[in-house]
Amino acid sequence: METSPPARRLTRRFVAGETLEEELAVCRRLNETGHLVTLDHLGEAVSSREEAAAACDAYLAALEQVAKRRLQATVSIKLSQFGIQRFEREARESVFRVAEHAKAAGTGVEIDMEESTSVDRTLALVEEVHTLFGNARAVVQAYLRRSAKDIERLSAKAIPIRLCKGAYNEAGGVAFPTKAEVDRNYLRLTGLLMRRGVNPGIATHDPRMVGGAMAAAEQYAIRKNRFEFQMLYGIRRDLQRKLIAEGYQLRLYVPYGDAWYPYFMRRLAERPANVLFLARNLFRR
Amino acid sequence: METSPPARRLTRRFVAGETLEEELAVCRRLNETGHLVTLDHLGEAVSSREEAAAACDAYLAALEQVAKRRLQATVSIKLSQFGIQRFEREARESVFRVAEHAKAAGTGVEIDMEESTSVDRTLALVEEVHTLFGNARAVVQAYLRRSAKDIERLSAKAIPIRLCKGAYNEAGGVAFPTKAEVDRNYLRLTGLLMRRGVNPGIATHDPRMVGGAMAAAEQYAIRKNRFEFQMLYGIRRDLQRKLIAEGYQLRLYVPYGDAWYPYFMRRLAERPANVLFLARNLFRR
Repeated sequence: METSPPARRLTRRFVAGETLEEELAVCRRLNETGHLVTLDHLGEAVSSREEAAAACDAYLAALEQVAKRRLQATVSIKLSQFGIQRFEREARESVFRVAEHAKAAGTGVEIDMEESTSVDRTLALVEEVHTLFGNARAVVQAYLRRSAKDIERLSAKAIPIRLCKGAYNEAGGVAFPTKAEVDRNYLRLTGLLMRRGVNPGIATHDPRMVGGAMAAAEQYAIRKNRFEFQMLYGIRRDLQRKLIAEGYQLRLYVPYGDAWYPYFMRRLAERPANVLFLARNLFRR
Repeated sequence: METSPPARRLTRRFVAGETLEEELAVCRRLNETGHLVTLDHLGEAVSSREEAAAACDAYLAALEQVAKRRLQATVSIKLSQFGIQRFEREARESVFRVAEHAKAAGTGVEIDMEESTSVDRTLALVEEVHTLFGNARAVVQAYLRRSAKDIERLSAKAIPIRLCKGAYNEAGGVAFPTKAEVDRNYLRLTGLLMRRGVNPGIATHDPRMVGGAMAAAEQYAIRKNRFEFQMLYGIRRDLQRKLIAEGYQLRLYVPYGDAWYPYFMRRLAERPANVLFLARNLFRR
């Protein structure tokens, strides 16, 4: 990584490093301080079978070490990184291999959601992985109007769900247009997940959404080991510490790999507020 | 107020001013930008009938102007300031006079809670004011173990309640000992108030508690005009703006008067964290 020291410091706050070894070291440290982890090997949509195979191999290597070192870590994958748009058959096989290896390692696969046109295909594949290996977690986005129905259907099949707000730019027809509406839907879906869901992951850095989940857990008498919060490594560490101290489960999404630049650019491009958000977080404890 | 410019700037962020006129100007500005207000004439426990009478007169003068200027403002009173410990009969009469004038001004009286030994007496007086004038709001503190029962009883009588965490040092027998337990009780009581309460005031600066209230309102389909958030003037203005922008009702507790020094000292002394809290807020937008 040819970076100046300030750029390196910036990336190291949000990215474990370039190598698997660095990722595993961060993962161990986080496990020791009470955090769950999900490993994310950075990468964007691929254009060749070789790149897709390399992404798959990276996850298989990571899972081998997770098992060997007894880390508490799932893996998070993106179907685009496995070449789903161009090499669907090979991509599906790769996903099944990762899920199979994850199962052997005693852990699971979280299948990230991408843009709204891919939701049906992605959730269908999650359901297949669930049927075959029983260790998939789906991602549902609160800004999509369809999400309550997705939660009902997936929960009826006992498929765990990560709830996030959603960060892609979508048309008003499929998505709620304002942040306030997305927030209200997030709170409604959190309540739905607490009632119906299996081991839900409440993925948010918004303390109000965190409070909403805490309130719903109190309301339905859901114990703290029956759900988890999820946040990005390095974001709102004050809130992360508070949740750990209060005995809540917290899983951190920890990216690594040499493709860190697109990770930042995508994050920044998704919402203008994220630029300020990242800048603020550099100065936050 | 013989204060240096920095001290004045500090106090002006949290205190409207020394005079009623300054208080009313702040109140008007806040009303114009969508905030409800509750006026608090600063003062501590009094030691003479004259001081107690002066406190009462200050509120009567304020209410006269609230009516004349058509401000959206209740008044918040402390029984100790009316001399309840030493001159109970006169203090009760003063409270009734304030409530009567508030009613004539088309508004209400919020009766602040003080230390736990005074809870029974305070709530009994709130109930009397409610019976006589129908415009009292009680304060219930989430850190007291008794509070769920108080909410049930007061709500059965349709008495509005302000829920706060509570800031006095109390023994573990009557109070929850840890912040995490107080938070969980706050969330439970918020749910109870949304189900059973009449026009509850959710008084907190903690975004997680705010989110808990938003979640409970979604859960029980409580419209935004059926409850209100309450915060102190000058504290967490970012969160205040957000709530107003999202269409929630927000009432600010705006103190004024020449007794600003004890207001700060009490606030600071209540919890060590408040010193840091105030310091941080000086640098927050």
